[in-house]
Amino acid sequence: MPRLRSDGFITGFLPTGALNAMTDVPGVLVGQVTLVSGEGRLQPGAGPIRTGVTAILPHGGNLFRDKVAASVHTINGYGKALGFEQVRERGVIETPILLTNTLSVWRVADNLVSYMLDDNPDIGITTSTINPVVGECNDGFLNDIQGRHITAAHIRQAIETASAGTVAEGNTGAGTGTACYQFKGGIGTASRRALDFIVGALVQTNFGGRRELRVLGVPVGQALIADLLPEPGPGSVMVVLATDAPLDARQLGRLARRAGLGLARTGTVGHDGSGDFVIAFSTASYHPHDPAQVVTTAPRFNETGMAINTLFAAVVEAVEESVLNALTAAETMTGRDGNTLHALPYDRLTALLRRYGG
Amino acid sequence: MPRLRSDGFITGFLPTGALNAMTDVPGVLVGQVTLVSGEGRLQPGAGPIRTGVTAILPHGGNLFRDKVAASVHTINGYGKALGFEQVRERGVIETPILLTNTLSVWRVADNLVSYMLDDNPDIGITTSTINPVVGECNDGFLNDIQGRHITAAHIRQAIETASAGTVAEGNTGAGTGTACYQFKGGIGTASRRALDFIVGALVQTNFGGRRELRVLGVPVGQALIADLLPEPGPGSVMVVLATDAPLDARQLGRLARRAGLGLARTGTVGHDGSGDFVIAFSTASYHPHDPAQVVTTAPRFNETGMAINTLFAAVVEAVEESVLNALTAAETMTGRDGNTLHALPYDRLTALLRRYGG
Amino acid sequence: MPRLRSDGFITGFLPTGALNAMTDVPGVLVGQVTLVSGEGRLQPGAGPIRTGVTAILPHGGNLFRDKVAASVHTINGYGKALGFEQVRERGVIETPILLTNTLSVWRVADNLVSYMLDDNPDIGITTSTINPVVGECNDGFLNDIQGRHITAAHIRQAIETASAGTVAEGNTGAGTGTACYQFKGGIGTASRRALDFIVGALVQTNFGGRRELRVLGVPVGQALIADLLPEPGPGSVMVVLATDAPLDARQLGRLARRAGLGLARTGTVGHDGSGDFVIAFSTASYHPHDPAQVVTTAPRFNETGMAINTLFAAVVEAVEESVLNALTAAETMTGRDGNTLHALPYDRLTALLRRYGG
Amino acid sequence: MPRLRSDGFITGFLPTGALNAMTDVPGVLVGQVTLVSGEGRLQPGAGPIRTGVTAILPHGGNLFRDKVAASVHTINGYGKALGFEQVRERGVIETPILLTNTLSVWRVADNLVSYMLDDNPDIGITTSTINPVVGECNDGFLNDIQGRHITAAHIRQAIETASAGTVAEGNTGAGTGTACYQFKGGIGTASRRALDFIVGALVQTNFGGRRELRVLGVPVGQALIADLLPEPGPGSVMVVLATDAPLDARQLGRLARRAGLGLARTGTVGHDGSGDFVIAFSTASYHPHDPAQVVTTAPRFNETGMAINTLFAAVVEAVEESVLNALTAAETMTGRDGNTLHALPYDRLTALLRRYGG
Repeated sequence: MPRLRSDGFITGFLPTGALNAMTDVPGVLVGQVTLVSGEGRLQPGAGPIRTGVTAILPHGGNLFRDKVAASVHTINGYGKALGFEQVRERGVIETPILLTNTLSVWRVADNLVSYMLDDNPDIGITTSTINPVVGECNDGFLNDIQGRHITAAHIRQAIETASAGTVAEGNTGAGTGTACYQFKGGIGTASRRALDFIVGALVQTNFGGRRELRVLGVPVGQALIADLLPEPGPGSVMVVLATDAPLDARQLGRLARRAGLGLARTGTVGHDGSGDFVIAFSTASYHPHDPAQVVTTAPRFNETGMAINTLFAAVVEAVEESVLNALTAAETMTGRDGNTLHALPYDRLTALLRRYGG
Repeated sequence: MPRLRSDGFITGFLPTGALNAMTDVPGVLVGQVTLVSGEGRLQPGAGPIRTGVTAILPHGGNLFRDKVAASVHTINGYGKALGFEQVRERGVIETPILLTNTLSVWRVADNLVSYMLDDNPDIGITTSTINPVVGECNDGFLNDIQGRHITAAHIRQAIETASAGTVAEGNTGAGTGTACYQFKGGIGTASRRALDFIVGALVQTNFGGRRELRVLGVPVGQALIADLLPEPGPGSVMVVLATDAPLDARQLGRLARRAGLGLARTGTVGHDGSGDFVIAFSTASYHPHDPAQVVTTAPRFNETGMAINTLFAAVVEAVEESVLNALTAAETMTGRDGNTLHALPYDRLTALLRRYGG
Repeated sequence: MPRLRSDGFITGFLPTGALNAMTDVPGVLVGQVTLVSGEGRLQPGAGPIRTGVTAILPHGGNLFRDKVAASVHTINGYGKALGFEQVRERGVIETPILLTNTLSVWRVADNLVSYMLDDNPDIGITTSTINPVVGECNDGFLNDIQGRHITAAHIRQAIETASAGTVAEGNTGAGTGTACYQFKGGIGTASRRALDFIVGALVQTNFGGRRELRVLGVPVGQALIADLLPEPGPGSVMVVLATDAPLDARQLGRLARRAGLGLARTGTVGHDGSGDFVIAFSTASYHPHDPAQVVTTAPRFNETGMAINTLFAAVVEAVEESVLNALTAAETMTGRDGNTLHALPYDRLTALLRRYGG
Repeated sequence: MPRLRSDGFITGFLPTGALNAMTDVPGVLVGQVTLVSGEGRLQPGAGPIRTGVTAILPHGGNLFRDKVAASVHTINGYGKALGFEQVRERGVIETPILLTNTLSVWRVADNLVSYMLDDNPDIGITTSTINPVVGECNDGFLNDIQGRHITAAHIRQAIETASAGTVAEGNTGAGTGTACYQFKGGIGTASRRALDFIVGALVQTNFGGRRELRVLGVPVGQALIADLLPEPGPGSVMVVLATDAPLDARQLGRLARRAGLGLARTGTVGHDGSGDFVIAFSTASYHPHDPAQVVTTAPRFNETGMAINTLFAAVVEAVEESVLNALTAAETMTGRDGNTLHALPYDRLTALLRRYGG
């Protein structure tokens, strides 16, 4: 899959991690399941199916027992992201983070709970309940979204095949059926080195109106607006951020609130119906479910401007590049009722970028 | 079921509605389904079952088409309440509000979406998706909570049998298996007249440590603490507020933020693991899904202190009395593994209240 | 000054610190300046004066150089508390916390900045600016509030005379001219031991309608409502919380959100015009203005329910008792235009408490 | 003063108002006072002075008596903006909005209160107190910021000379001494027509690192980074939004949350020390201080995506263009200690824009 960076089109100033992906953050695993089946007329409940699930694991152990510091941020709340209340209160995430389609979000959460019960049979009986974190975008233009086709088996597969290597982008996992600036979009990822740390981003795109699209500042959407037929209106975006910097929940919240600046660089005006959510976590130290002592010691990130500004820049750059990577990796897809989301034509894109290149 | 008010123990100064219930707000309907089956040892997935679902309908029409102004407030976010992000953003509720047990919350939401699809088959296809609002408390001390026994049929039943009359309290619906100050608790409701309006409250209690319990200011929990065996620790509480005052979402948020003052009157210190959430809505005017015009006219509540303070007092009083009504209506229940939640002994309670009566 | 505890009327279950005051938290200093002059008719700008300033110092060193972890919480935002935005963002307090009257709040902040410049002449020139934290209540029923009579000298005096000993209560400092449940109120303080830590509270009361007042659950306001002439309507309340538990800003926020439960125990319904704000800080470790290293180690409070619930209870109890201490310490005061705020009659209060004593 | 739009460099798609300024919103008035005096070495308290004040009046009447619906949003809270708590609670603004330098913000608020007392002598005596709304940026690189040179007379002048015509941009009013992407910045304004309404923006810029600066997508900062000496680090930004669309406070909050997307288009990563705040108000209907009736009727904006998205786009475009207008209007200025902020060289800028023009 083409990435602009490979062709010399660079966004930002900071160096990337080895894979330029969320998985550059040590310990973080990503797994995806992609469902594509059926064609033709929508038969709600039967198909066609163009959807999937993407799992992000902050680490490979038992997340309920060893939680990670986390924060969430709502850019625009027209969406169904789950688990946010408890993350805000307690500042930790205790399950894999799953992304999927809008109408599947509750069934996916229910099945994620079932999955977690296997390893933690005391949940709700002799210890507390559990807070699944699940995000979503609306892939209903291509997918039989009412059918809610993600099953328990798909979730298990996404989690258990999660790995630390290259992350598939574009029409994959939760991005299988989604758009981006009314082109085909999907999953994108990127990373940045900042200080001695890594910041990784992964996005599930569905947002933006075509006319607004800017790539590296070039008004690509405007240039390509007349070429293709109208697509569905702007949808949503999920942004997941990971870092190994030892940030607490409040500091992760500051990172999360910068994600929107990365999105904005690609042109969006933040549409009404766009559920735009950010989830950020740190892998630097675990928060045990049953701590042995009330007070222990932990690393603390001293928040001078000079230090944290580099992390902020890393977030903005990684989010922007994740969106671009989703756009360039995605391929034209036809779904229910013959609806088609067209890929952003890569050759025309790079020609435009060169033409505007100065 | 006994209510303290019937025996002359009055909380607050404002007059109640006719039923002293959430359903005093014109148009509001409440329906409940109660599941009690099995006894003895917990077999996760099989029972025993002590749970249920409570449905609050802001009106009897199509809520997706005619939404109501709403607000949510998180007192303590250690919980799984669903749908809050979109209510905060858009200021409306577009489904019945369902209450149930913690681990059922996602499956209930999924089934609520299915239910709404029947009347609104365009959801996710030719119009937007839908935002189910579901709250919960943990009834796992009595109930096979891992079993998630609430089905689509139960949800349909709760919604379709919802009515405007008397609301069952105590061990009913979502309160079937829940506690309150380590006594048996459950569903409680109350209402107040304020200005020319009605404010109704309905609570699903599960919160509070026994020692903390105060009833009309009397330290009942302390007086009764030695009598009974220890119960599970404090859980959560859901508060739903309804009014026919023409409040907008911001103003409803101000009402919602007063609910905690009503809870506090009964003694709670707001425990860590207690997911304490408030949902408030106004029935005064509907927000159509597809408005014919961008700008229309609507009633506006001019927010002088004198006027809105009466509504605030109505909230505090109705919430406090709802908790008391849940406590006095609930009956001793034994559930899984022989676990028992004891009713607050009504005669001893009233004797204590009389003794402290001045 | 009488305190109910000295006469055997105890609120809550936790033990108090040695002084039962904010200053039980090691290192915390409190200083107050009280201004009472003039009588008779209000001459705006000239008097009569019934006001003051209360200073709380998290430690006796240079607070700009050694900041403390902090959080703020707005119960009801109808007020002018200053400095909250930056505390929310950065999670630290870097000045003494000052309390005063509503219309003086900006002039006091301006003079607090001047005071801080003396020891930190680089502010705004070679380092960042500074964020004064100042709270207020409206004492305009007794005081020439338009006159803004708090000067730079008063602020200096309040800060420089701050000490670790007993804290004056009632008609003192920022509580000189304020009310409480339409009786005379003022400054009150209390503390609780929790785990190995101390939680201290200090309140500047001005809130509540008389009829609502409950003392230890007894409806004192109702009993005394007919006896005295009407007073001005409900005002505001500032709550300051201190602890030596090593809490981060998010955890301090959880404490701050419990303060309202303590207020509610005294009966308030949270009036519209009441600016009810909470400021919480931890003295456990300092956050240097110019840290030598980006990452250091620091104590971490592992937030199990059992541990933090004790801190929550400490907050609720200390806030409740602070309000009661303000009420019982305050003495009847006459101010501008002969306006009088009557003290809650202590003998009648204790007689009522005994009568309801069970 | 040059504006890019006059030279054919257009940002966004929506048409501008007649003046392309905040004052295109009917009834809105802007007044500014600019203080430039002294040169050479900084003598704190004496000068040199490079500062000012900018006043935005939602209407020309008595704002305390006829308030306007309003909302505030904090993008990054490292700043001292005043009045936000009460605007969040009550959803109205009741004074002119003043912008000034960081250390003057409290003195300016105090003097604004004095100014308001003249027309409303009952404030704090027979009616409620008043909530001044004041924002700020740090101009201490050029200005004797410790000197706090804005007086009561300057505030009166800014308010009383406020007018509906062209708004001075660049080194004027509160922007006199401020930066933008480490170039000289200041005040900028723009407007957009959206539906039948106008959205106006006014910014006081001080934010951004030079390297980050993008103008219409072109990496101008990078191209010009080597040419000039280093300037002080990134500061803050205040954004004020006005509209005649009949939005309530919640809806205005949605507009306010889009302002950051406009800022992001110019390249910022949202620096730690940058107090980035947004204030939004609607002139569509007034909220009387003493309403005659509790319930009246008022226009309501029905918030379909199609309608409000146009307002969102108007915000993003107007904010982006306001920043550009501030940059191109500002002129090189030398202040205290010979410190100089260089203007963005307009000819080089337009040459770069043409070169990248495609």
